[in-house]
Amino acid sequence: MTIEFWQETAELKRKNVAAQVPKEWMLERVPTPEEEPNAYEYLKKCLPKEENDIADLTIIELAQEIARGTFSSLQVTTIFCRRAALLHQLTNCCSEIFFARALDRAKELDQYFAQNDKVIGPLHGIPISLKDQVNLEGIDSAIGYVSLVNKPIKRAQISNIANILDDLGAVLYVKTTTPVAMMSAETVSNIYGSTLNSCNRKVSCGGSSGGEGALVGARASLLGLGTDIGGSVRIPSGFQGLYGLRGSSNRLPYCNIRNSMANQPLVCSVVGPMATDIEDLKLFTKLVIDSKPWLKDPKCPPIPWREFKVSEKLSFGFIDVSVYSYIHPPIKRALKMVKERLLKEGHEIIQFEPPISFPQMAELWHRIVCADGGREISEECRRSGEPIREEILVANDDGSVSKEACITEFWDDAGLQYKYQQEFDQYWLSTSSMTKTGRPVDGLLLPLSAVTSYKIGDCKNFFSLFFTQAFNLLDYTVVTTPVTKADRDVDLIETQYQPLNKLDELSYKYYDPELFHGTPVGIQAVAPRYEEERAIHLSQTISKVLNS
Amino acid sequence: MTIEFWQETAELKRKNVAAQVPKEWMLERVPTPEEEPNAYEYLKKCLPKEENDIADLTIIELAQEIARGTFSSLQVTTIFCRRAALLHQLTNCCSEIFFARALDRAKELDQYFAQNDKVIGPLHGIPISLKDQVNLEGIDSAIGYVSLVNKPIKRAQISNIANILDDLGAVLYVKTTTPVAMMSAETVSNIYGSTLNSCNRKVSCGGSSGGEGALVGARASLLGLGTDIGGSVRIPSGFQGLYGLRGSSNRLPYCNIRNSMANQPLVCSVVGPMATDIEDLKLFTKLVIDSKPWLKDPKCPPIPWREFKVSEKLSFGFIDVSVYSYIHPPIKRALKMVKERLLKEGHEIIQFEPPISFPQMAELWHRIVCADGGREISEECRRSGEPIREEILVANDDGSVSKEACITEFWDDAGLQYKYQQEFDQYWLSTSSMTKTGRPVDGLLLPLSAVTSYKIGDCKNFFSLFFTQAFNLLDYTVVTTPVTKADRDVDLIETQYQPLNKLDELSYKYYDPELFHGTPVGIQAVAPRYEEERAIHLSQTISKVLNS
Repeated sequence: MTIEFWQETAELKRKNVAAQVPKEWMLERVPTPEEEPNAYEYLKKCLPKEENDIADLTIIELAQEIARGTFSSLQVTTIFCRRAALLHQLTNCCSEIFFARALDRAKELDQYFAQNDKVIGPLHGIPISLKDQVNLEGIDSAIGYVSLVNKPIKRAQISNIANILDDLGAVLYVKTTTPVAMMSAETVSNIYGSTLNSCNRKVSCGGSSGGEGALVGARASLLGLGTDIGGSVRIPSGFQGLYGLRGSSNRLPYCNIRNSMANQPLVCSVVGPMATDIEDLKLFTKLVIDSKPWLKDPKCPPIPWREFKVSEKLSFGFIDVSVYSYIHPPIKRALKMVKERLLKEGHEIIQFEPPISFPQMAELWHRIVCADGGREISEECRRSGEPIREEILVANDDGSVSKEACITEFWDDAGLQYKYQQEFDQYWLSTSSMTKTGRPVDGLLLPLSAVTSYKIGDCKNFFSLFFTQAFNLLDYTVVTTPVTKADRDVDLIETQYQPLNKLDELSYKYYDPELFHGTPVGIQAVAPRYEEERAIHLSQTISKVLNS
Repeated sequence: MTIEFWQETAELKRKNVAAQVPKEWMLERVPTPEEEPNAYEYLKKCLPKEENDIADLTIIELAQEIARGTFSSLQVTTIFCRRAALLHQLTNCCSEIFFARALDRAKELDQYFAQNDKVIGPLHGIPISLKDQVNLEGIDSAIGYVSLVNKPIKRAQISNIANILDDLGAVLYVKTTTPVAMMSAETVSNIYGSTLNSCNRKVSCGGSSGGEGALVGARASLLGLGTDIGGSVRIPSGFQGLYGLRGSSNRLPYCNIRNSMANQPLVCSVVGPMATDIEDLKLFTKLVIDSKPWLKDPKCPPIPWREFKVSEKLSFGFIDVSVYSYIHPPIKRALKMVKERLLKEGHEIIQFEPPISFPQMAELWHRIVCADGGREISEECRRSGEPIREEILVANDDGSVSKEACITEFWDDAGLQYKYQQEFDQYWLSTSSMTKTGRPVDGLLLPLSAVTSYKIGDCKNFFSLFFTQAFNLLDYTVVTTPVTKADRDVDLIETQYQPLNKLDELSYKYYDPELFHGTPVGIQAVAPRYEEERAIHLSQTISKVLNS
């Protein structure tokens, strides 16, 4: 078999990334997933206690200590670079590594601090990681395409959010892997291969912000930026025990973030933080909004941060999701846990009957997001000669892509989306007649997916994404909230289940207590459109009852 | 020549509308435009002084008097119904007349007032007129299509803004004419024929909110709702001496307003008030926003009313528009007047160099708005058999329509629009280095069009709409602000002008001091995206200096 040019390009890129890891941080031998399923635990064993302790702080704590002079930026940056270097070897999570640049930046920050006796901004010295799509000067944003390798970003293309992070004082040190064109819930490309779950290396990290999920999941970053058009922030957040925000379209600035089908105007990819701590996630989101991103991004609506101020007990809607799909036992248990704890703490729960079914919303999502019939993806792959991967959403089973819509069909789908939004909003408002608070439900709670995760290479169509895609279509705000971990001793195989259909049977049979043991399980806390503040408050409330 | 079915339908519709005018309000003879060019002056002669005096109040004054019990709602409604009835005979401005319903509503309001000793809302008893597109139960919204005649709107389709008006206490009494599909700057359709300018009946009222412009222009309504996708609120407002707001997309709720190419997502038609008084326009806009339209319209961004608070002198950008087109003498004079008065009152004026030319922005506007190649318009016309009118923007000279774009082209144009928006925003921000205030310019001032108006049937392609279309593409906020009137004794023909090209020559030669004498001239006061409050403040400032 001859090696094709695209294969050489990809291999060279992989080697170049790997070469950015200093020799002294190279593992002598990478343990197998079976030997060391949990990368965070493995790092704990490999690294000095002082370093682990610092990585176990929240951003709020860390920023405080840096501002007090307890730690220098250089010290903190070095710790996170080293963790990222190790984690990349364990999970293959980095698409770009630029430690030298990060350490230079850290030194500059330390110098500023020494000279001015104050920090440069509220994130002074905090390492922040970025999904590969975020443009940084002089660095590739290949987003999984071999054709985009070795095309470093120019100054004029730097992402607005990267500039905001600079202004806030953050230190950027790595970018993380995505599937080709971000069009999969598994993180794999012809450039990098697959990224493993850092909490359970036997399974997938999810996607498309999978590299970010893996990195933050092992605290090799305390907060990273992902993007989400169908679940891409939420799913890897859930699979790695993180908080992840999918806000409404352009609440956070997407300007100059590289994207596939970037100008499809109906269901927008959004950028959002993935964090180990909900207070960190809140602070970050507020800081970005406080920077008034609408002044430099025409798509951002000028909505300032508005603290969510309901101090009483909340009212939550639960949806009976069993009508759509078998739900894996750990997820079912997570939902039950949350429900019981909320009730115990005096919150209210009502049954929420979505006026449009989730598969129906997902069907429209697919038609809109794939309306170019995969033309852009095919063309971009053709440029390098790399084959279109079968995980890509637009590709049919035979590798062919779906039919391109005409303008009228696309506009009709825009109208249908608007109709669904109106119906869903209306139903939500109508729940005020069912709650004790007299308000409509404050939020909705539902799973991220029917399955716990998947083995590498297994992310096929029967793992439906309708629970997440629906909220992109509706443009609601969601925070993935970690709840528990799959437990082989508790989450047993259910033998009595009658599958709804063939696909459901596949999903049902996919549950494997041994394989998934230790994999985090999160849920979606959903608030209406442009209510990021409220979605975060829902997540805070859930975390509080879970820890009480 | 046989009469076709669509012609019968149209004729019957015209007769049905006319039949809604009570006999006692029928003019014995309709004076010719030459006899009575100004309908407002003619009404002054026809109607009792007490009625004219009430029609000369502002909404704020009128609402106050109604709330004090000085006038009843029935009295006020009757006065405006009568004015509308007369004006319809003079200008052909009404598409739907429903006086009986209005008078019933007025009686109900009076009853409420008598029983509760308070008004039902801040617009209690104020007659508000509506462009034909606004859906009311049991009434057609034909938007110029014969195929949509005799298809009364159902309860579920009532426009959100109509419900808001109801809640505010307004009285609805007429809907007004539009060109077919709102795709022209002249108001003419196969149903109604042409609508005349109420300030100068020899020329066009403009369009597409031309019926509304004519009606409010003669104070047969003090405030009406128009819509604007390329200048449709602004042009008829200017041609009839009114204030007219084109806000950013969905700042005011468009939900359930009937539209053509309703789901084209890039350049959105917006709904906006057209009023005789800027304080009335401000009050109205604030009331609608205060009603939180985003709760019931998923497209409305949740941006509350934010008073524009700059109390110092303002800084205005002027664009040298002579590079694009010959500007008719009355318009040139209007711009000069505004400039001089602003300077005299201590405001600042700087030269603003748009980073993208207006014709270039208009070209993109056309590609986006007409991306379906006129398919919807053709199909809708085919339903009734009516011919596609040559005024319609999508139609070529031979009546054929432009080519339909493919999805990729449409998405590419979305990207280009975003690029233009970024460049324009960036340039605007950069003007802070040129102003004495240190702020970027507070607003831009420029003409609505190069021509004063046009004779009925003359609205052809050489009257370019680029000065208005550009701000739809950019999604900026604009208030048309009345300045002066064309004056045959002052605005003389210029003999020294060298036309820029063939079209410019046509436009130049079109100026006719006698024809246009008395036609109002307005300008555009432009503010950035979602800055309706500021655009209104600019207009208030200009009005103040003009009247000082």
